[in-house]
Formats: sequence, structure tokens, C-alpha cells
Amino acid sequence: MYILLTNDDGIHAPGLWALYQSLRREHRVEVVAPESEQSAVGHAISLLNPLRVKKVNKNGSFFGWSVLGTPADCVKIAVAEVLPEKPDIVVSGINLGANVGINVLYSGTVSAATEAAIMGLRSMAVSLCTYREPDFTAAASFAARLAPQLPHLNLPTGVCLNVNIPDLPENQIKGVLLTRQEKGVLMEKYERRIDPRENIYFWLAGLNNHRELEPGTDYWAVHEGYISLTPIHHDLTDYDTLKELNGNKWLEELM
Amino acid sequence: MYILLTNDDGIHAPGLWALYQSLRREHRVEVVAPESEQSAVGHAISLLNPLRVKKVNKNGSFFGWSVLGTPADCVKIAVAEVLPEKPDIVVSGINLGANVGINVLYSGTVSAATEAAIMGLRSMAVSLCTYREPDFTAAASFAARLAPQLPHLNLPTGVCLNVNIPDLPENQIKGVLLTRQEKGVLMEKYERRIDPRENIYFWLAGLNNHRELEPGTDYWAVHEGYISLTPIHHDLTDYDTLKELNGNKWLEELM
Repeated sequence: MYILLTNDDGIHAPGLWALYQSLRREHRVEVVAPESEQSAVGHAISLLNPLRVKKVNKNGSFFGWSVLGTPADCVKIAVAEVLPEKPDIVVSGINLGANVGINVLYSGTVSAATEAAIMGLRSMAVSLCTYREPDFTAAASFAARLAPQLPHLNLPTGVCLNVNIPDLPENQIKGVLLTRQEKGVLMEKYERRIDPRENIYFWLAGLNNHRELEPGTDYWAVHEGYISLTPIHHDLTDYDTLKELNGNKWLEELM
Repeated sequence: MYILLTNDDGIHAPGLWALYQSLRREHRVEVVAPESEQSAVGHAISLLNPLRVKKVNKNGSFFGWSVLGTPADCVKIAVAEVLPEKPDIVVSGINLGANVGINVLYSGTVSAATEAAIMGLRSMAVSLCTYREPDFTAAASFAARLAPQLPHLNLPTGVCLNVNIPDLPENQIKGVLLTRQEKGVLMEKYERRIDPRENIYFWLAGLNNHRELEPGTDYWAVHEGYISLTPIHHDLTDYDTLKELNGNKWLEELM
């Protein structure tokens, strides 16, 4: 297969390198990734700034293209301008840190896969659930086994896979579960600090949460030691509420 | 009501000012908005940079708070640090330009409303469907009529309203329609240019599309001259595909 590989941690991230090494054994892999770390950029695209694309070498030979932009930018420009032909699949990752629950909304890694799906391409986002010293071995090996299956999963156009891998040695991973996105809210707070010029500034802190996890969700699966696969789409419509609202008197008077 | 007002075009944008003027007639309105334009930032939040919050005056008196961050950052920090109490509702806008179809994913305006919904607050995003010289009168007046209804629409927790208003004088707007998000793909291309130092750069161009619009969608509604109301949520799971995948042999063998 011809694979486009991208991420949100930047083209020099070890997670991307691990995935590149494991995918290129059997596939033609082209790397188009952000020049710098783009964590939590969500589904941003660059409208106000132009995109710059640069060749990047690694160990003395050509490795891929860096883009001064977001992960979604990378997928768009790779397909429109950089690659000589459409890739068979797009893989985003391996992200350092889980992309489960509402983190999916903030994730640049996932948005790259979503962008590919919007363009009609098969795609998946791969994340390793740790922030400590990462060992990408198990994640890279699973992703390389999953990649050739992507075209055969009968995903509808516009749907991609969000893959989260627990931080365990390969033989301790309990298996694979199909999951839904967990909906719980993160417990966040800001740390207030004062700079040397006596201006106040704030750091977002405490993105973790410690609550009951609902079985069947992505967050729960990786917490229990399973690889989580969530099919995700980009239709944000809440159809149940859409039906409900049709009976609303105030709105009916307006219509 | 106590209303938090934000946007993605920045605290000095005329659309925010128009909405502020129309909401403050009957409500207590607090403005916490990005310091600069944040179009197409999607659901980005600031993890790598600290947030700075500054007082902004307008016509010689206090107007609101500017945040060196994204629209989602503004909502988070407003509720956590800036406002003395939780707002009754959060309103984001008026955005210059429609937020319909897959634009909803890229929209900072919508992500502010989504962020509020995630935090359990009632919220809506308001956009005016034009990029030409805007007249916010009709949009601001409709938003001010809709705002007090928000708590009474029985939206489930986590669901917010995406409101798009056609660029027409108030008496030419045909009515209000409940809609779903249009799923069509934008026709995009990049313009390739060369800078004075002979480096190549690209501009994203042609974000509009000219295709058949499906009745019942947000894009179609505003195109036909109606105000579009779409209830949106933040669960990206594709439940139909989740069911389908459960029968997949390859995956079953892994489970």
C-alpha cells in the first residue's frame, strides 16, 4: 500500500519514527507532518497564514516533508500538492498520550485522520496511552497489523478509526475492543502565576480525571488493558435532540 | 440572565459588538474573547503556552477581558478564573461567515459553544452567512430573542445550538428551520507562490463549494433564506459503524 503518515507531535517525534519503521517494512510510506509540536490544536486549519513545506532528512537521507501548520493542514496539502498520487490510507500517530473521551475533540492526531476521512480516504489515528518514558513497540506493531485491514473494514465514507493502545508490553495487552467515545468531563484547573514584569498569567493544569469509567467506552477499555478501536465521524448533529426540538412550541411559532 | 459572550474573530470584532449591544438591553453580559482573530482554530486549547488575560476598554469604559488564546480557552478560563459566578448561558459570535457543513469542525465560534456545553452550560454559536460588508442587525436581534429561550429548550447536557443567519434584511428572512449538519466536502485548492527569498509557500484557497444542497441541512436552509438551528454534540462515535464492525471476522479474531 501507499501510506501517508502524519502526526501532531511533529515530524521529529519518536512516535512517528516508530510507526514509520514498522509500516515501511511492507509498504511505501510518505511522511508529511507538522514542523513543530501541535498538541491540542484540534481540527484547526491555516487560513490566515500561508503553509511552508520543507524537505526533512534523517540520518543523511530524505525522510519526509515538514509543514509549518496543523495536522489537518498536513493531510490537505499532502494530498493536494505534495504526494504524486492519492494515498491508499492515511495513518496519524503514534501520539504520545491517550486520545479518548472528550480529548478526541482537542486532538490534532485525530483531526488529521478525520480530515483524511472527509476527503474520502481510509484513515486511522493511533495513540499510546502514556506521558511517561514511552515504549512504542507494541503500538507500532499493532498499527502495522491493522493498517492493511483498513480498506477491508467496510467503513462508510467519512468514518475513520480512533485507535488507543494501553501502555503495556505486547504480551500483557488483553485484546482489542470496539468502543464508543467516553463523554465524561475532565476535571481542570488553572494555575495562576506572576511573570517577572508582574503580569498575571495562567497555565491549564490537571487534564486528568479520576472518576468511574463506563464499560464499553474508549477510556475504560485502555484503562482495563485493552486496545480500543472507536469508529468516529464528523457529523456533530445530535439527531435525538433534533427530533425533540421539532415539538417545541416557541420554535414552532418562529417557523 | 447572566451571559458570557465570546467569539473567534477577536474582542474588537464588529459582530461581537453588535451582539453585545443587543444582549445587554435585558441581560448582564460579560465579554471574555480572544485578543486576536482565531478563525479556523477548531477546538484548539492552549497547553504549550500560558494564557494571558487583559482588561479591555471601549469608548473610555470597561468592556471585557481579552485572552491570548483560542475561543475554547476563553470559555474555560472565563468560567474557572475570570467570572465571579457561573454564567446562565454562553453565547459565541456573531461570526463573520457561515458555520455550516464541515466548516463546523474548523470553527472556533462553534468550539466555544461546544466547550461550554461540555462544561454543562447552555450555549449557542451565532454566525452571519456573509463575507461581504456585514449588517449584523437581523442576526443580533434574532440572537437576543433566542437567548432567553435557551434554558427552556430542554437541550440535553452537552448539546448546544449552532445558529446560522442568512445575509438578508430582517423582513426578507423566510423563517427558522431545525436542520442537520450538511456532510458534503468542500472543493479546495492551494495557491502556490514564491517568496522574495525564492522559497515556495501555499495559500489555502477556494473554501466555497457549488454543488447540489440536500434539503434539511444547515447549508441548504441558509441558502434558501432561512435561519438554521442545528443541535450539536461532541460524541464523535459513529454508532452504526460500531454495530457493523462487531461482525468483522478479522477484528473478532483479535478480540
